[in-house]
Amino acid sequence: MSVPAPRHPEATAELLARLGPAQVLTDDASCFAASFDNTRYSFLPEAVIRPADVPALQAVLRLANERLVPVTVRGRGTGNTGASAPIRGGWVVHLEHWDGIEIDPQSSVAKVGPGAITQAINDAAAPHGLFFPPDPSSVRFCSIGGNIATNAGGLRAAKYGVVRDFVLALEGLLPTGESVTWSRPLRKFVSGYNLRDLWVGSEGTLGIVTQAWLRLVPLPQARRTFLLGFATDEAALEAAAGLMTSRVAPAVFEFLDRQTVEVAQRRNGRPAFDPAELAGEACPALLLIELDGHPAVLAEDAAKVRAWFAGKALALRETDDPAEAEALWNIRRTCSQAMYLLGNAKLNEDIVVPFRSYVPLIRLARRMRETHGLATPTFGHAADGNFHIHVMYDRDNAEHRRKAETAILEMMREVVAMGGAITGEHGIGISKSPFLRLQHSAAEIAAMVAVKRALDPNGILAPGQIFEPMNVWERTPAKVTLPWDRH
Amino acid sequence: MSVPAPRHPEATAELLARLGPAQVLTDDASCFAASFDNTRYSFLPEAVIRPADVPALQAVLRLANERLVPVTVRGRGTGNTGASAPIRGGWVVHLEHWDGIEIDPQSSVAKVGPGAITQAINDAAAPHGLFFPPDPSSVRFCSIGGNIATNAGGLRAAKYGVVRDFVLALEGLLPTGESVTWSRPLRKFVSGYNLRDLWVGSEGTLGIVTQAWLRLVPLPQARRTFLLGFATDEAALEAAAGLMTSRVAPAVFEFLDRQTVEVAQRRNGRPAFDPAELAGEACPALLLIELDGHPAVLAEDAAKVRAWFAGKALALRETDDPAEAEALWNIRRTCSQAMYLLGNAKLNEDIVVPFRSYVPLIRLARRMRETHGLATPTFGHAADGNFHIHVMYDRDNAEHRRKAETAILEMMREVVAMGGAITGEHGIGISKSPFLRLQHSAAEIAAMVAVKRALDPNGILAPGQIFEPMNVWERTPAKVTLPWDRH
Repeated sequence: MSVPAPRHPEATAELLARLGPAQVLTDDASCFAASFDNTRYSFLPEAVIRPADVPALQAVLRLANERLVPVTVRGRGTGNTGASAPIRGGWVVHLEHWDGIEIDPQSSVAKVGPGAITQAINDAAAPHGLFFPPDPSSVRFCSIGGNIATNAGGLRAAKYGVVRDFVLALEGLLPTGESVTWSRPLRKFVSGYNLRDLWVGSEGTLGIVTQAWLRLVPLPQARRTFLLGFATDEAALEAAAGLMTSRVAPAVFEFLDRQTVEVAQRRNGRPAFDPAELAGEACPALLLIELDGHPAVLAEDAAKVRAWFAGKALALRETDDPAEAEALWNIRRTCSQAMYLLGNAKLNEDIVVPFRSYVPLIRLARRMRETHGLATPTFGHAADGNFHIHVMYDRDNAEHRRKAETAILEMMREVVAMGGAITGEHGIGISKSPFLRLQHSAAEIAAMVAVKRALDPNGILAPGQIFEPMNVWERTPAKVTLPWDRH
Repeated sequence: MSVPAPRHPEATAELLARLGPAQVLTDDASCFAASFDNTRYSFLPEAVIRPADVPALQAVLRLANERLVPVTVRGRGTGNTGASAPIRGGWVVHLEHWDGIEIDPQSSVAKVGPGAITQAINDAAAPHGLFFPPDPSSVRFCSIGGNIATNAGGLRAAKYGVVRDFVLALEGLLPTGESVTWSRPLRKFVSGYNLRDLWVGSEGTLGIVTQAWLRLVPLPQARRTFLLGFATDEAALEAAAGLMTSRVAPAVFEFLDRQTVEVAQRRNGRPAFDPAELAGEACPALLLIELDGHPAVLAEDAAKVRAWFAGKALALRETDDPAEAEALWNIRRTCSQAMYLLGNAKLNEDIVVPFRSYVPLIRLARRMRETHGLATPTFGHAADGNFHIHVMYDRDNAEHRRKAETAILEMMREVVAMGGAITGEHGIGISKSPFLRLQHSAAEIAAMVAVKRALDPNGILAPGQIFEPMNVWERTPAKVTLPWDRH
């Protein structure tokens, strides 16, 4: 990206003349605010479009196809891969104001606009005893359109599923501007090709969602939270993988390695467990478990959890009191920000590995720390193998940057060799584009690119994303504070 | 199809020379047996190929692309739309011998070949306390490859989901012969486009599955079966749709209309309920409910079912004894064959409608009977709106055939107008190809066809299926007895 993106002043002027200044913003502040996501790599668009309605959005796409202007769709900008950054310039379409939410309690369906905030959907569903299970950590800030674009996951995916499991139907526009509806808000639909699930997770490159119908499920009646301390990362992970054979399905099952616990305890100023509880161990590896559901089932599962971990965990605390549960969650909630004690920059890689590779994975993380001298605190979702390995480094230190880059590439290679995935919930965007060819064969990528060309013949929607490797290490992130920054 | 399909004797001879007569069958009996599915519309292939391994199958596809020979993949031939019939001739690839099944109890995953029989997967999973929930009525005969190709459903879909919800990863060949793997046997995977779910339900037109990884779930601990009789179809359906708001999730929730019950009682020679139980009503509409799960949850749900239907149903029987439950299932199990008392030919349309359209739908079925004078017995899955409307007629009566054809077209139009689906679990194939344009806009179909061309540039895989309307009424089904015929 050393060459500046071509500009389209005439097309932008034409769009402005057609839709007016309330829908087409060209001021510097609007363009800057729409230029990056949570990765903060900024790529300036020429205009930010807030379409009043679907015909306005169609007009945008038609003109973009005529004049070959790149169009990038933006939700709330909470993404972790730069997928909503307009890397080739052009126009950003902003849909945060399309945020309607209607709940149909009989069919347990939510009809939502793409700009609806995910937590707001849950707030609307709760009075009907329903909820939308996917819970990315940005749930209070992110839009459902972005969740659909990335097929977002979260903590509860192993029990409840990911976003794709809850999308019944999508209404939207093809890159060429035609209106389409994929599937219907029904439980069964097998007419024609399933382009609904092709759109889900396509990171805004195959179409624009203007309306979605989501399946909701009954809120659990009861919850019980456990925090368990282990002498070693290996002991925690072996016990975690083993629990899955007992057919307990925890709603939350988080692993935190000793590097993560150490820095979180340091920041919080108090330990998760007293050393006395841990047979003198100052810093345990942790498992945080939340069971939910019917009280009778929960009681049986809780007994299984206690029996399984007896003799494996050094310490166990449990509660069904919400305030006490929040205390058990404390390390998990604070660990992500605490990691900045280990470096001013963080790579957060959301890889996935099978159960058999849990222990090899954590050894890999520690080996990277030893080889490169950079901290690699790791936590993740132990019921679905989706671990977040972090590499902490000093952004202003060229040697650190080089080491972090090398470490991540090594890790991705090893994860794929383990039968794993380079991304479980963030997507590819630009940040993971250098690793796509580790995961997929040339034939697989060619098939994906052929599908992209088939649906977007002029290549106007989010061009350059996913398939064209971009080295983000060459770029400096914007220094901005975002609503979800908490440090 | 009045023009015979072009033949490819040289290509077939070349394939025979390359793979040998054990893999390439050209005798009349083999070709006839591979020429039709459960619809019995026969289209003769030039050869039936039973590839020994993946490289042999790749050789078939490469030669087919070079010589432009149509290739149609066949599982066990239980399909209901003609999707596995080689309507343009060419070669049929038969994969029933690729039937390996491996269960990984720790990750609750089955690794299966496409020819594995669905019930055999359940038989292999049961000793581990696991099962594969989708249960098309052909479960003892159909192959998992066919289930994947059609995204099969069944009775338990509203509670457990359809085939797509259980496919973790697919290994297979693109139409051009390249090996690909879509996703991995992991719970989260968001790298690149989701071609896995595009393949699922694409009716053999976008690729050939050579291996699949399926998610299994724990077998329910307990079951309870209810049979309820109602004075009218409307009373049964209103009560059924209403139950869904009480958040009971029946594993099975079957509706049988009075036409269906009448003919099944006539064939069985005994009624579902004594007339005394039904306040003198001889022929009720029925609901058959099966709850399953943890005994404590099941007991609560059973109480909700009893309370909900008190005052709505004329009669209720329930049991947790398997033999007694089988007696309650009797009408449901026999009704499909009993319908042949009403005509020697049956159309079985697996439409889907939202809850609000249950009563309008059954009135539509009865109106069709009155207008056209053909019986329209209807049963279906009341928890997901997937109803099977049947039109019974005399195949040898041209007037009947014309009326049945008209009635089905009218019904499809009305179902789409209700916000419904023309097919919930069978797919399009050739039988429903005349209705595709009722369900989908021109832009939607153009997008689907563009995807087909992108992945199958030479159009060799199952050409003519889904997108090219074929009037099957012009054809006479083959008179054959298939393993699953029971009359």
